[in-house]
Amino acid sequence: MGRNLVLNLVDNGFRVSVYNRTTPQERLLQEFIEKDVKDLVNAKKVVGSFDISSFVRTIKNPRRILLMISAGQPVDSVIDELTPLLDQGDIIMDGGNSEQSDTTRRYRRLHHMGLHFMGIGVSGGEEGARHGPSIMPGGSLEGWLNTKDILQFEFLIKLLQSCSWIGLDITGNPTSSAGAGHFVKTVHNGIGYADMQLLAEAYHLMRDVLNMSPTDIAEAFDNWNADNLEWRLLENTAEILRFKDQFGDHLVDKIRDAAAQKGTGKWAVIEAMNAGVPANMITESVSARFISALKDDRVTASTQLIGPNHHKFEGNLVTMVDDIRKAVQASKIILYAQGFMLLQESLPRLFGCHLNCADLAQMWRGGCVIRSTFLDHVKSAFILNPQLKNLMMDEYFIRALADYQLAWRRVLVTAINHGIPTPAFSAALSYYDSFRCPRLPANLLQAQRDFYGAHTFELLEQPGVFHHNDWKRGSKPP
Amino acid sequence: MGRNLVLNLVDNGFRVSVYNRTTPQERLLQEFIEKDVKDLVNAKKVVGSFDISSFVRTIKNPRRILLMISAGQPVDSVIDELTPLLDQGDIIMDGGNSEQSDTTRRYRRLHHMGLHFMGIGVSGGEEGARHGPSIMPGGSLEGWLNTKDILQFEFLIKLLQSCSWIGLDITGNPTSSAGAGHFVKTVHNGIGYADMQLLAEAYHLMRDVLNMSPTDIAEAFDNWNADNLEWRLLENTAEILRFKDQFGDHLVDKIRDAAAQKGTGKWAVIEAMNAGVPANMITESVSARFISALKDDRVTASTQLIGPNHHKFEGNLVTMVDDIRKAVQASKIILYAQGFMLLQESLPRLFGCHLNCADLAQMWRGGCVIRSTFLDHVKSAFILNPQLKNLMMDEYFIRALADYQLAWRRVLVTAINHGIPTPAFSAALSYYDSFRCPRLPANLLQAQRDFYGAHTFELLEQPGVFHHNDWKRGSKPP
Repeated sequence: MGRNLVLNLVDNGFRVSVYNRTTPQERLLQEFIEKDVKDLVNAKKVVGSFDISSFVRTIKNPRRILLMISAGQPVDSVIDELTPLLDQGDIIMDGGNSEQSDTTRRYRRLHHMGLHFMGIGVSGGEEGARHGPSIMPGGSLEGWLNTKDILQFEFLIKLLQSCSWIGLDITGNPTSSAGAGHFVKTVHNGIGYADMQLLAEAYHLMRDVLNMSPTDIAEAFDNWNADNLEWRLLENTAEILRFKDQFGDHLVDKIRDAAAQKGTGKWAVIEAMNAGVPANMITESVSARFISALKDDRVTASTQLIGPNHHKFEGNLVTMVDDIRKAVQASKIILYAQGFMLLQESLPRLFGCHLNCADLAQMWRGGCVIRSTFLDHVKSAFILNPQLKNLMMDEYFIRALADYQLAWRRVLVTAINHGIPTPAFSAALSYYDSFRCPRLPANLLQAQRDFYGAHTFELLEQPGVFHHNDWKRGSKPP
Repeated sequence: MGRNLVLNLVDNGFRVSVYNRTTPQERLLQEFIEKDVKDLVNAKKVVGSFDISSFVRTIKNPRRILLMISAGQPVDSVIDELTPLLDQGDIIMDGGNSEQSDTTRRYRRLHHMGLHFMGIGVSGGEEGARHGPSIMPGGSLEGWLNTKDILQFEFLIKLLQSCSWIGLDITGNPTSSAGAGHFVKTVHNGIGYADMQLLAEAYHLMRDVLNMSPTDIAEAFDNWNADNLEWRLLENTAEILRFKDQFGDHLVDKIRDAAAQKGTGKWAVIEAMNAGVPANMITESVSARFISALKDDRVTASTQLIGPNHHKFEGNLVTMVDDIRKAVQASKIILYAQGFMLLQESLPRLFGCHLNCADLAQMWRGGCVIRSTFLDHVKSAFILNPQLKNLMMDEYFIRALADYQLAWRRVLVTAINHGIPTPAFSAALSYYDSFRCPRLPANLLQAQRDFYGAHTFELLEQPGVFHHNDWKRGSKPP
């Protein structure tokens, strides 16, 4: 991704100095300059350095240095190598998937040294990096003011805003925001996990209930997309499903069904737990990967754990495919409602700043993996009502959910009767039905908590007043 | 709970020295001794101290000091006050709900000072503390050898083992285990969250689909329990449902349905995430509390978000109540499978020790809130196969799940068609159907991850070998 960002920047007229910390540094860097950079119109704008101090000397003050390295210890190591070489007012940007708390720690430490640190979420994969990523910068405001010409270059040349500052004060002006950029990237990735899980569940139902081939499923996905969805993940998933290997077989059919993960999804769950925000679609998507990884245990269990005797689908295939589309679209609304609620709740608490949700929807619309016209509706919802607490409650989405909900229920009933797991669709419906339930059974939970731990409860008629009852004493006579 | 533990210990012949750190110390402590202790046969075995140094002086070496105070900063403060007054070899036990990482930190720090620190999970509520709690001790092995006479007193007098050491080496002998006791308590509490959520969902369906009164529901719960379940939570929940206030109304109907939480459920989720263990019933139960807390938003949403037009239940009420029982019991198996997997995976990784799962089931059977004859089956499963990786795979539970699964599916279908959220029942079934699925759609997830991030995938035929595919290049000709 670092390489592609360099090529992208150079294409857009910036001078870039490049240094690679890993060994053998010389070969990798030389190859990059001799092979990848050579053919660019602006090839001479790239300077390669083979040690970090010459690298720093090639850059004019205030230096603007972007790290594209693995999250964790490597970031601290490179910062430690850099800081003795830098001058007051220089800027370090971390473009990796760092944990927000690490970014906040580094931001504070460098701030005390007179340096500006920024944590920057970058999304779009390798292709996005080359042709226009989505960029979520947070951290030092002075850093931002000195780097926005670079970070917003896509905007300047394409009039497509895919980078805005993460961290506003209450009047809507930019303010320093510590790890807020990486926090937003973490939630973005959590949403990405669930976006992928939704399509995986759709695929699973089509494959194992409807007996559709990968090509059939790809065609269905393309049809969905043709209906003004422009969902990049859907488009690419259709490409994946169509891909045939050298034997003429669908490669997807040969891939082992054990999903790995790199940590950001898990962090998003942990942030949701710490925020007290329900984000069960992200948690179920992460859990689904955990279960998938127990492949050998599942194969053994499949011969012993009993399912329903309900293997033949007897409904209408075309209708069911369309129902599945609606289940995906309804679940997607729930997912983004959860993600934005997590962001809106957490930014003030963790970083003392606010978020312009409409701007963020625009940024995600731009370059990243989760982009889709869906985000236009998200943006409109937040423009209409910047204080919107839950995306589901926007008029457009209320209507969409009303349109989808019966189909969504039919899909779940079919999945349950066929023994097909749909953890993300189910979590989404649980959330929807919980949220529209004026009277959940949590009164019983509160009574149980009071019974065992004297944790007290409120009465419906007196919110805010806490009572304890001596449940063991028995009922009082009327 | 501290008071009740003192009374319990004194009843059982131990001499106890008591000190209360909060102000006004004198009054609270004096009240306790003059009112609660006075009537005990062994009343003169209690010594109250009004400052911490006299308290320490009243205890003979090696001192055995149990803290029953709020988790977090208070524990550190009291430790800091105590340590200058103690001698080498003295023992501090923390009986609160501390986070395992705090306990590990304190264990290490006190170890360096020549003191023994133990983190002890105590369950059973106030009543359990008075008449026999479940105790989960971990930390310093020397501490344990010097305190097991106290901690296991229930065993000595009742021949009911509700306390064993948490932390075994590979030969099964006790070893020091840092925060393992509090870790087990955290998972225990996570299980407790889900146990409560299962009954809340059963209650919700009976109340809003079957239109049963609290008394009817209490009767159904009692009938379930009469069937050799001895599930304490179920028994107490029936008492709660029957409880009438001074107006002759069911108190449960007047309680505000906004559940609070104290943190341990959330920690269990975070531990599951860090362990990579799917524990979606705990995560859904925590999320369900978060959603319930958004009471005002739910009331607003209930008039705008559309549900199914399916309000009258047309099935057989008796059959449905029995189906709900089976859904609860099936889900309970899944829950404990998840909890024990989390424990078995985490103890070696976090604390370098192992767990005797059969012993733990026995301890939980003894005194705590989650006790039930169900735990006898759990214990038998682990005695039969101490290496059992997933509780569901025990013969007894395989058969039970086979018996329950169709009823469980019927309950979920009814809930979905009536628009009633059942997040824990649903999460349990998703887990069950995922675990018995030999071929999940995670092959597609892996392909998507490889497409965007070159994260590589394995082939079914070559587990352990990782491939990257250039998906954009298009299919290869056969």
